Amino acid sequence: MLRVGLGAGAAAIAATRAKAEDASPPADPDWSKMLGPGVGDRTYGNPSHFESDMKRRTVPWLTASAESSISFTPLQYQHGIITASGVFFERYHAGRPTVDPAGHKLMIHGMVDRPLLLTMDDIKRFPSESRIHFIECPANGGMDWRAAQLNSLQYTHGMIGCAEWTGVKLSTVLQECGIKAGASWVLAEGADGAHMARSIPLSKIMDDVLLVYGQNGEALRPEQGYPLRLIVPGWQGNMNIKWIRRLQIGDQPWYTREETSKYTELMKDGKARGFTWPIFAKSVITFPCPEMPAKGPGIYEIRGLAWSGNGTIKQVDVSLDGGINWAHARLHGPVLPKALTKFTLEWRWDGKPALLQSRAMDDTNYVQPTLAELRAVRGSNGVYNNNSIQTWQVKPDGSVFNVQLA
Amino acid sequence: MLRVGLGAGAAAIAATRAKAEDASPPADPDWSKMLGPGVGDRTYGNPSHFESDMKRRTVPWLTASAESSISFTPLQYQHGIITASGVFFERYHAGRPTVDPAGHKLMIHGMVDRPLLLTMDDIKRFPSESRIHFIECPANGGMDWRAAQLNSLQYTHGMIGCAEWTGVKLSTVLQECGIKAGASWVLAEGADGAHMARSIPLSKIMDDVLLVYGQNGEALRPEQGYPLRLIVPGWQGNMNIKWIRRLQIGDQPWYTREETSKYTELMKDGKARGFTWPIFAKSVITFPCPEMPAKGPGIYEIRGLAWSGNGTIKQVDVSLDGGINWAHARLHGPVLPKALTKFTLEWRWDGKPALLQSRAMDDTNYVQPTLAELRAVRGSNGVYNNNSIQTWQVKPDGSVFNVQLA
Repeated sequence: MLRVGLGAGAAAIAATRAKAEDASPPADPDWSKMLGPGVGDRTYGNPSHFESDMKRRTVPWLTASAESSISFTPLQYQHGIITASGVFFERYHAGRPTVDPAGHKLMIHGMVDRPLLLTMDDIKRFPSESRIHFIECPANGGMDWRAAQLNSLQYTHGMIGCAEWTGVKLSTVLQECGIKAGASWVLAEGADGAHMARSIPLSKIMDDVLLVYGQNGEALRPEQGYPLRLIVPGWQGNMNIKWIRRLQIGDQPWYTREETSKYTELMKDGKARGFTWPIFAKSVITFPCPEMPAKGPGIYEIRGLAWSGNGTIKQVDVSLDGGINWAHARLHGPVLPKALTKFTLEWRWDGKPALLQSRAMDDTNYVQPTLAELRAVRGSNGVYNNNSIQTWQVKPDGSVFNVQLA
Repeated sequence: MLRVGLGAGAAAIAATRAKAEDASPPADPDWSKMLGPGVGDRTYGNPSHFESDMKRRTVPWLTASAESSISFTPLQYQHGIITASGVFFERYHAGRPTVDPAGHKLMIHGMVDRPLLLTMDDIKRFPSESRIHFIECPANGGMDWRAAQLNSLQYTHGMIGCAEWTGVKLSTVLQECGIKAGASWVLAEGADGAHMARSIPLSKIMDDVLLVYGQNGEALRPEQGYPLRLIVPGWQGNMNIKWIRRLQIGDQPWYTREETSKYTELMKDGKARGFTWPIFAKSVITFPCPEMPAKGPGIYEIRGLAWSGNGTIKQVDVSLDGGINWAHARLHGPVLPKALTKFTLEWRWDGKPALLQSRAMDDTNYVQPTLAELRAVRGSNGVYNNNSIQTWQVKPDGSVFNVQLA
């Protein structure tokens, strides 16, 4: 009989215990009998070659070209709240520009007293801010609006990543420019070939937007906008303009391509809803998942990630029966606003079919909706802002499938 | 006249403002006129080639061979509390073994009811814990016990790194083994060619020690013990056994080579003090520093990192005059126990010589000592546990030097 608090390892352990009964150490493997490479052989390290499955993946049919497409973070291998920089998802609108930081400048103009042209050295000299925030593309989950498609956590939820970002509060920089009376909007434009541009309310800019040059202890990665990007905490990923080169202050939105023909929500009645900025509370179970099945009946730990662009995760519930019964999951600290939050729940699996779900609630008391609830409001014509509860069907052999309940 | 709260960018900005006065955007650089590589060209990304100075460095004369040596983290480029996995310092005792996770096993034996032999799959099935902790080699700063040597932040303080680690509480695993009455010590042994081994009190093991397989969102890096290491939060780095293969439970320490001839503190009287485990509160200014000088008089932000192996950083003070006057620095969240903590202070530099220092205090109210205070107790024969206040001398041209005050 398993003792309370024993945890999920017991079942797995039984299989190996016999081999250890004589209490003698196992024979030395080769790697314990030789010298390995010394320090200095890799001045910048990379993962073990045994981790070759740890990679971003793409869906070729998703977009017309790779230069305006997306790759997906392998969330099935993410253990905590930080996403490894090497596999942080990419979204390009004209491919990834190679920007020389020595030649990069940020222009700030429009309704300001003193327009500015800032070099990277100028920007790094401002007071710095470091914050852990997620970035999610609003198209995350978009493939599944009408029906469950790819059987993969990486593809259903992998347009997201979370990092420690360092930069300067944009409010600090704008204070230096002097904002003219009546200003209420900011156009942010990237230095990529698409000149990717979005209109952002000045109120959000002054609240918590950062101009960022650092990611997880080093410079921004090229895929993430090196040498400079915007972080718009909690708002859809495409507003976090990468390779940022221009900020224009104005008194109305610009209605750019990326907020008219794209990144609007197509509703049931065929009309499109624009300027839907925040990522609403969302969560997903990362173990078990299609890529990481269960291995026979026994004790497991259900693991997952939750996030909200409107605040801090307050509670995550987990269901084993498709949403009939729910149990509170344990939240793991640090629980930070607009950041991924890890949750876990012990799961004693009897080997019968199960329907696993997670449901996040944030500190605004907003609760993550079911797909049926979302469709009742928005229909199923859209692509963006699918924050519905994910269902993983576990079959008796432990395999896991992406399904949608009626 | 600068306004209050304006921040450190103003002086730098003045130089570029004139160019922006006509409010027209700068000419498009080449990278804004072309398509870049699309998604999928790099399934695992790396830093920009412009960041080629972002690398671990070694000191060839420090040790007899590279296989038993150390490399240093470039702290001068670390913007927040997370150390980039690619440049996290290395310490090897027989080089870096290439361990196949499919063949790696952890033996737990000695004073237990049920010895265990665990595979990586077994270990990952236990309830998981994710925590942000620093690891510091106790030899960090050891080159400077007698006199200031290398003029470099990377070399004075770079034997440290901080990451989000994921694994299982060792107490959970040991509960499964059943600890026999009278047990009080644990021997942890690595699978490297040195079979690096340390004795750790059982009380610490049961308190907060982790068996770790994840680092910053991916598997442990090979340099950090892939596929499995110990994290002994706040205790000296060498106890955080890498490539861990054996835990033996006993009732007395083993007095291994690494806790007798090495990793003991040579005192004034020539005796050596052993088993000095925790890293006491410490801090360092990371900007300005020898590698990152000031550029002429003006407003700057002094930036630094503080940490304590005994708890949480409570306060950091900064002196501009070699310890005569002190000002409270701002601590940046999240401020976590046994983790790096970022601090900053605005600095209006008049271009005169300055002696910059930082002094950390943790929540035990322990205050980081001066080098003179440390030497009064310990003499200057030792290598380990130099947590003294660092002095950076700033010269009128902005260059920064590693100095020691009388």
